[in-house]
Amino acid sequence: METVEILTKVKNNEISVEEAESYFRRQPFEEMGYAKLDLHRKVRCGFAEVIFCSGKADEHLLGIFKKLVETDGEVFGTRASEHQYEMIKKEFPEVEYDKISRILKIEKQDKERIGKISICTAGTADIPVAEEAAQTAEYFGSNVDRIYDVGVSGIHRLLSKLDVIQSANCVIAIAGMEGALASVIGGLVDKPVIAVPTSVGYGASLNGLSALLTMINSCANGMAVVNIDNGYGAGYMATQINRLAEK
Amino acid sequence: METVEILTKVKNNEISVEEAESYFRRQPFEEMGYAKLDLHRKVRCGFAEVIFCSGKADEHLLGIFKKLVETDGEVFGTRASEHQYEMIKKEFPEVEYDKISRILKIEKQDKERIGKISICTAGTADIPVAEEAAQTAEYFGSNVDRIYDVGVSGIHRLLSKLDVIQSANCVIAIAGMEGALASVIGGLVDKPVIAVPTSVGYGASLNGLSALLTMINSCANGMAVVNIDNGYGAGYMATQINRLAEK
Amino acid sequence: METVEILTKVKNNEISVEEAESYFRRQPFEEMGYAKLDLHRKVRCGFAEVIFCSGKADEHLLGIFKKLVETDGEVFGTRASEHQYEMIKKEFPEVEYDKISRILKIEKQDKERIGKISICTAGTADIPVAEEAAQTAEYFGSNVDRIYDVGVSGIHRLLSKLDVIQSANCVIAIAGMEGALASVIGGLVDKPVIAVPTSVGYGASLNGLSALLTMINSCANGMAVVNIDNGYGAGYMATQINRLAEK
Amino acid sequence: METVEILTKVKNNEISVEEAESYFRRQPFEEMGYAKLDLHRKVRCGFAEVIFCSGKADEHLLGIFKKLVETDGEVFGTRASEHQYEMIKKEFPEVEYDKISRILKIEKQDKERIGKISICTAGTADIPVAEEAAQTAEYFGSNVDRIYDVGVSGIHRLLSKLDVIQSANCVIAIAGMEGALASVIGGLVDKPVIAVPTSVGYGASLNGLSALLTMINSCANGMAVVNIDNGYGAGYMATQINRLAEK
Amino acid sequence: METVEILTKVKNNEISVEEAESYFRRQPFEEMGYAKLDLHRKVRCGFAEVIFCSGKADEHLLGIFKKLVETDGEVFGTRASEHQYEMIKKEFPEVEYDKISRILKIEKQDKERIGKISICTAGTADIPVAEEAAQTAEYFGSNVDRIYDVGVSGIHRLLSKLDVIQSANCVIAIAGMEGALASVIGGLVDKPVIAVPTSVGYGASLNGLSALLTMINSCANGMAVVNIDNGYGAGYMATQINRLAEK
Amino acid sequence: METVEILTKVKNNEISVEEAESYFRRQPFEEMGYAKLDLHRKVRCGFAEVIFCSGKADEHLLGIFKKLVETDGEVFGTRASEHQYEMIKKEFPEVEYDKISRILKIEKQDKERIGKISICTAGTADIPVAEEAAQTAEYFGSNVDRIYDVGVSGIHRLLSKLDVIQSANCVIAIAGMEGALASVIGGLVDKPVIAVPTSVGYGASLNGLSALLTMINSCANGMAVVNIDNGYGAGYMATQINRLAEK
Amino acid sequence: METVEILTKVKNNEISVEEAESYFRRQPFEEMGYAKLDLHRKVRCGFAEVIFCSGKADEHLLGIFKKLVETDGEVFGTRASEHQYEMIKKEFPEVEYDKISRILKIEKQDKERIGKISICTAGTADIPVAEEAAQTAEYFGSNVDRIYDVGVSGIHRLLSKLDVIQSANCVIAIAGMEGALASVIGGLVDKPVIAVPTSVGYGASLNGLSALLTMINSCANGMAVVNIDNGYGAGYMATQINRLAEK
Amino acid sequence: METVEILTKVKNNEISVEEAESYFRRQPFEEMGYAKLDLHRKVRCGFAEVIFCSGKADEHLLGIFKKLVETDGEVFGTRASEHQYEMIKKEFPEVEYDKISRILKIEKQDKERIGKISICTAGTADIPVAEEAAQTAEYFGSNVDRIYDVGVSGIHRLLSKLDVIQSANCVIAIAGMEGALASVIGGLVDKPVIAVPTSVGYGASLNGLSALLTMINSCANGMAVVNIDNGYGAGYMATQINRLAEK
Repeated sequence: METVEILTKVKNNEISVEEAESYFRRQPFEEMGYAKLDLHRKVRCGFAEVIFCSGKADEHLLGIFKKLVETDGEVFGTRASEHQYEMIKKEFPEVEYDKISRILKIEKQDKERIGKISICTAGTADIPVAEEAAQTAEYFGSNVDRIYDVGVSGIHRLLSKLDVIQSANCVIAIAGMEGALASVIGGLVDKPVIAVPTSVGYGASLNGLSALLTMINSCANGMAVVNIDNGYGAGYMATQINRLAEK
Repeated sequence: METVEILTKVKNNEISVEEAESYFRRQPFEEMGYAKLDLHRKVRCGFAEVIFCSGKADEHLLGIFKKLVETDGEVFGTRASEHQYEMIKKEFPEVEYDKISRILKIEKQDKERIGKISICTAGTADIPVAEEAAQTAEYFGSNVDRIYDVGVSGIHRLLSKLDVIQSANCVIAIAGMEGALASVIGGLVDKPVIAVPTSVGYGASLNGLSALLTMINSCANGMAVVNIDNGYGAGYMATQINRLAEK
Repeated sequence: METVEILTKVKNNEISVEEAESYFRRQPFEEMGYAKLDLHRKVRCGFAEVIFCSGKADEHLLGIFKKLVETDGEVFGTRASEHQYEMIKKEFPEVEYDKISRILKIEKQDKERIGKISICTAGTADIPVAEEAAQTAEYFGSNVDRIYDVGVSGIHRLLSKLDVIQSANCVIAIAGMEGALASVIGGLVDKPVIAVPTSVGYGASLNGLSALLTMINSCANGMAVVNIDNGYGAGYMATQINRLAEK
Repeated sequence: METVEILTKVKNNEISVEEAESYFRRQPFEEMGYAKLDLHRKVRCGFAEVIFCSGKADEHLLGIFKKLVETDGEVFGTRASEHQYEMIKKEFPEVEYDKISRILKIEKQDKERIGKISICTAGTADIPVAEEAAQTAEYFGSNVDRIYDVGVSGIHRLLSKLDVIQSANCVIAIAGMEGALASVIGGLVDKPVIAVPTSVGYGASLNGLSALLTMINSCANGMAVVNIDNGYGAGYMATQINRLAEK
Repeated sequence: METVEILTKVKNNEISVEEAESYFRRQPFEEMGYAKLDLHRKVRCGFAEVIFCSGKADEHLLGIFKKLVETDGEVFGTRASEHQYEMIKKEFPEVEYDKISRILKIEKQDKERIGKISICTAGTADIPVAEEAAQTAEYFGSNVDRIYDVGVSGIHRLLSKLDVIQSANCVIAIAGMEGALASVIGGLVDKPVIAVPTSVGYGASLNGLSALLTMINSCANGMAVVNIDNGYGAGYMATQINRLAEK
Repeated sequence: METVEILTKVKNNEISVEEAESYFRRQPFEEMGYAKLDLHRKVRCGFAEVIFCSGKADEHLLGIFKKLVETDGEVFGTRASEHQYEMIKKEFPEVEYDKISRILKIEKQDKERIGKISICTAGTADIPVAEEAAQTAEYFGSNVDRIYDVGVSGIHRLLSKLDVIQSANCVIAIAGMEGALASVIGGLVDKPVIAVPTSVGYGASLNGLSALLTMINSCANGMAVVNIDNGYGAGYMATQINRLAEK
Repeated sequence: METVEILTKVKNNEISVEEAESYFRRQPFEEMGYAKLDLHRKVRCGFAEVIFCSGKADEHLLGIFKKLVETDGEVFGTRASEHQYEMIKKEFPEVEYDKISRILKIEKQDKERIGKISICTAGTADIPVAEEAAQTAEYFGSNVDRIYDVGVSGIHRLLSKLDVIQSANCVIAIAGMEGALASVIGGLVDKPVIAVPTSVGYGASLNGLSALLTMINSCANGMAVVNIDNGYGAGYMATQINRLAEK
Repeated sequence: METVEILTKVKNNEISVEEAESYFRRQPFEEMGYAKLDLHRKVRCGFAEVIFCSGKADEHLLGIFKKLVETDGEVFGTRASEHQYEMIKKEFPEVEYDKISRILKIEKQDKERIGKISICTAGTADIPVAEEAAQTAEYFGSNVDRIYDVGVSGIHRLLSKLDVIQSANCVIAIAGMEGALASVIGGLVDKPVIAVPTSVGYGASLNGLSALLTMINSCANGMAVVNIDNGYGAGYMATQINRLAEK
């Protein structure tokens, strides 16, 4: 998009051919050898880069954490272990860690939140995934309503919350085992529903694959599915929708 | 159970050792070479033998059909093709065939029916399986309520029928695609629920496997599952339960 | 929501207790025996009921078609066969049928369309699914941009269309085989992406399951997935998002 | 069901419109934030709510345990760890824990038991699942006969117990590995059989999936299947059937 | 094994170095371009080469058929279509075709048969696979007992045949659906059992995969499994065992 | 089989009707509550009962161990842990334990061995399974040749051992990863081959499932397959064949 | 790569800023609406675009065919049906069609071929896939040796051809059923091996998935795998390697 | 190949018949009981034998290590644990161990490297697999370019490295999760691409199976796939190709 500007500068001899060529070659990422941080992401997508902490070596995680704090003044990491929290805290005593959602973050104060996202879970055991979704959405500026333990085996619990759920711009439905909650919500609301299967269950739940299949095959309209336990992905997409609605 | 009787007769020389031995050896089935018909089944289990017609050669099907009509005065076949119907009709003009359920039968008049079974389907496309279940249950002497097209994408349709469903001794929940109907019914009624996944669907429905997994993983209490499209099996078991309840 | 109104009328003796009770019992659907048409759906969700034609018996399809035309003055059916088109055309000569998308519809003239949805396919063979999505979105009032045959094996084709794709409120990414298109689009745009795996492919494509897994595991942010070949579902959800954005 | 009563009271000014509306809104569950306890379940279904302990945080488990003891004077938890037992015992020294079945409970004295359920296992390793089923059934008021280690590799062991098995109202057949026991029992008894696949086995047993498939495909009549290792589900449904039979 | 002989001839100048080298290079097969017929197989293994007819082009099948008749004076083909039978019959009017087993053969008269193999099926629909096994075993010189339709849903049928089954050197157990027959036979006989899963069944039978898993996981001793519907493979291996026993 | 004898005694008043009836009822197993030991197995099948130790509680294992030593003077356990070995050794200091095969046994001295079984592995990592097979076969009286690490990636190793392999009555082919060894051996020998897939491998080996599929689909004749890592099952069946051959 | 050239031209006013910008935007493909033909592919990759004919509408196939003939003077299509051949022949009477490989092409005369690729199949039924590979490699300028029907069930056939196979720059190993051929070849040659699983087989071959797993898990070094039946892909990559070797 | 030489010596009485026979029998491997080391491999294939350390017993690993160091003066082991490193270091203090790639080796100094292989990863977590590939290729004499963290969610990172990637003789593309990187690279380069799926991911990544399926189904030309996490296999085959190109 900025090609015209650069070319004009070349033509006007404001920059050299070499400078222009290097510009076209320069990429909007920070080369760290083991990682290439996408620092232009916030500009390009409206969302800063987030760290998937799981499995990262300590020195790599620390390096990436530092670079992102420097760049943005805040940072958001998912799937962090307690060990990683302790390790980061030594350098950044202000870092916050939530054991349930396993989110590790430094967040700016007084950020504004807009719109609303409803996050529903079938059971208590789905709450870690729900909190990953909720805190992601809040970090990126959405208001969130939490409606937990409204699974279909006692459907009156869900029905009693319909007004709240329906009032959001987007609904996240989180369930393990047979994952039927998503279909039922999909049939009851007129907003986009993002379904998140969880690995909660045993036996033929196949670590969440059964719930995933349930949700993918749902006969409800206006629903799409993310990976098993992917609360982050649901919170991110819900925020995109929420922002569009509040634009 | 009859060992004592036979042995007493031996002791009293009412029958010879050879006769007794042959008795112990004789099996309660009709040897037809290609089949061994279980003619004592009605006595042993309270249900006459049923013919699974699919894939049977014409001469085999006809042979078995004849033998069962002779023995019981009626006969019940599932998964029959139109060709099989035409073939049987030549010898048994009174035979009845239902294209939807693919049931082929000769049934005695004025059989009594007891109790009640509710049969629910998620959609219109599940009706062939539901009719296989319903007509099986009726043949074996149960009353049946049909509640069709009450899938979870419009849950008010199901809720409006709850009284009817709840009044049965046993409920059969039939659904393809994501199969969530069974879980929702399981959470709403206090009777045993037999869940039947169907092969209705496309893509990741995997010909009914997804619905089967949904139902097996259901968090609802009091539910068990039969094979994909197995309306007959559900109707049979529901009748067993219905008979126990009406005993 | 209307409980207070009804109760107030009861209190004021404007309606009898019996009438009120019947009101609470009455469901917003048309009971047709083989189907329960959700006629309040348009009011409740903003989208009229759509017919999934595949596998419906002629008389059932015709009955449902008639009822919906009566109610809404227009009707939209997916997965219709040519036979079904011929059958419906006898009663409704104005019905339109598109062989590619297999959509069968009667549509009101001069309906307004708002916003924009971009629909991308990896190859030419994915076009039937794309057209199902596109025509669904158009029927429900969205503008659509079609960007076909931009699969990753020649990524310059996709990059050349980025401006168009990026200008929509929502993007639908459709691909069979390995399904990588969705991830690449997800990394390039900052709008919600709905990924549709298709059954295009052979061998280990497993009739679309491989593409589905690719999309579900995508490392791209802001993406969710619908069932294999489910163009309708993607077009529906994209319209929900598009409406929210244009509100 | 109680709508008429409430409406009558409104009409008679016995309660205000606001009170009535709040009644319709109030749900028969205890909102605990992390859980919504279904306290009306015993009334609605005849079975009190049961706790699935696995994976519950200590404070959540304790909170739920307390609430249920308060409400019902007894409580039943499945899949409890020894740690959870120790934790609960500090507040409820009377709590009982069975290491084999992992059941954690406080049970009222002198509860009556009715009818009979037969519980069969293929091997010794299936006993934990069988005990979960047996103790569930006993807690809810059924008599239970345990017939363990009667797998088909030595079928005379099973045949020697047929009289006992046959005398129950319902049979639970529990097996891992190839799961053939359920089919054989299904062919020998005329009562409903609930089949429970277990994760006992190795290699191609796929953690119980093979046994599940065996049972779902069974050619025996009158059999349905619950999830792998789901002794609780089998015990629950068997009790429903047993109660119907003893009604 | 014959290296010493050849080398001795070289040393004694009975054959040239070149001849010897060519000997080591010459392979015991007939090169036909599209096929390499293993004509030494009968010498090496005691069993002549067999033709798997399915999918072979007419000219290829005919060419191979001719070559084998020339070499051995007889030939045995499996999975032949009626079309292939008609095609071969034009050149070999004496060829025999069995529609059930789909075996196409020219067989020498008065071949001797030894020992005994028992072949059991669970149902009538398994007979095509059983006949492939039986006729293979007979062609290669084994006596065969056929015991059909003795599935576990009526186990008295199987028990009544135990003496016959037990008297063989090897038992072939053939079953589709849940495949439990193999385990039961495995527990009742003390001879090697070859289990053959069949594709008979529907729904979760997965075209025989479920029966295969059942058999592979069998807790019975002395049993091994061949591919789904592979009657030929079972008949072949049973003959090897039968020959060893009658040696 | 002994029915005639018993009946004759009844007729002759050598035993009472009651005694005879009790005889027919008495089962040839030891009821231990948690287990039903098949003590007549050695008579019936020629092989004493073997203990699958894995997962048995200490007291159960010890009880079974004791009973079998009492009955047979020797005992053979598979899949035993070191802990179980230590536990048993306290009561039976003469017990032997092999860490590689995990076999735990007390064996009589100077048992005779007959015939020969060849046991081949693809790699070094398959040796534990091979030793389970070998020691099982030896315990039950077969001579065994061990040919280890002859996988197909260096096929000259296998070819150099062909004479040895071919001289056995039965061959056991053991391989993980892609499991191709079994097919190659199947094509080279004219004796029955029992193929054992192992869980050796990583990634798409799916814990042995890939090797199992390879072996089941083998185009080699005279081969059948047992469960993943089931050395015991292969050793048992090979002994049956070896005994038949040496009869 | 050409950025510097363009920029230099801009600087020198040889082209306008607008022209340069349009250059950067112009993509090397032909926009046909339903397809975007990659006409620069031959320059970029050294291989012209190939048509995957399967599933293309007649008018689309014809349009693409025409455009490619115009551009390159020749064209190569895979997976063409006889109908498509007839349709194309009307406009291009010189088009050639091979029924076995289903290749449809117009090829320039007297193209040079270099190096050598060996193509081996396990059986006769794998020849269609082998011919797709062979003719692809030949079209793109490689010499090909065909070695068919050398499967592992008679390994001497393969060993007799080793010199020929070993003399190529690259080997393609094609096999269905258990796919063991690829591993054996991989262990015998020191050139890169491209393994192609085929859908030849039945039962547990799972339409080629088992052969694919076998090949992916191969313990042989220097081997990689393409999709089931993907002869084209193997021929293409083998040509890349052959060209590198002959450079 | 040396048959003629040996035979000529026999003819000339330079060696005895017995010696010659023994020569033909002697195999080019070291028999170690638990292993058969392929010491002629380096001559036959140009690559010395490599040790797959995982799961080898200490004494076996040490024995093999010693023998290979003796033979070749260097040795290369993959998938070694730290424990194995410590164990080997006691006898070979010069051994080197890399924790990331888990490679354990003794390598000769000053080995020459030729050509170039590019190794790309989608993310930081794929680096262990990439290093296994890179160090394998380097050990066998290839130059390697490492391009890490260029996954498709930020495709500009990949595009910025295209010149480097394109300049290699062969490209290795390594990715977990959805594995789309391989397809994109396959579409951008004109060199053979070896795709390596990794087990990086969670939920529906199925431990790398999803990435494997993605890569196998890739629509890109000139790509083949190795097992999940098989960096060694990719490095080996890439070296074969690199050597051919630099010949």
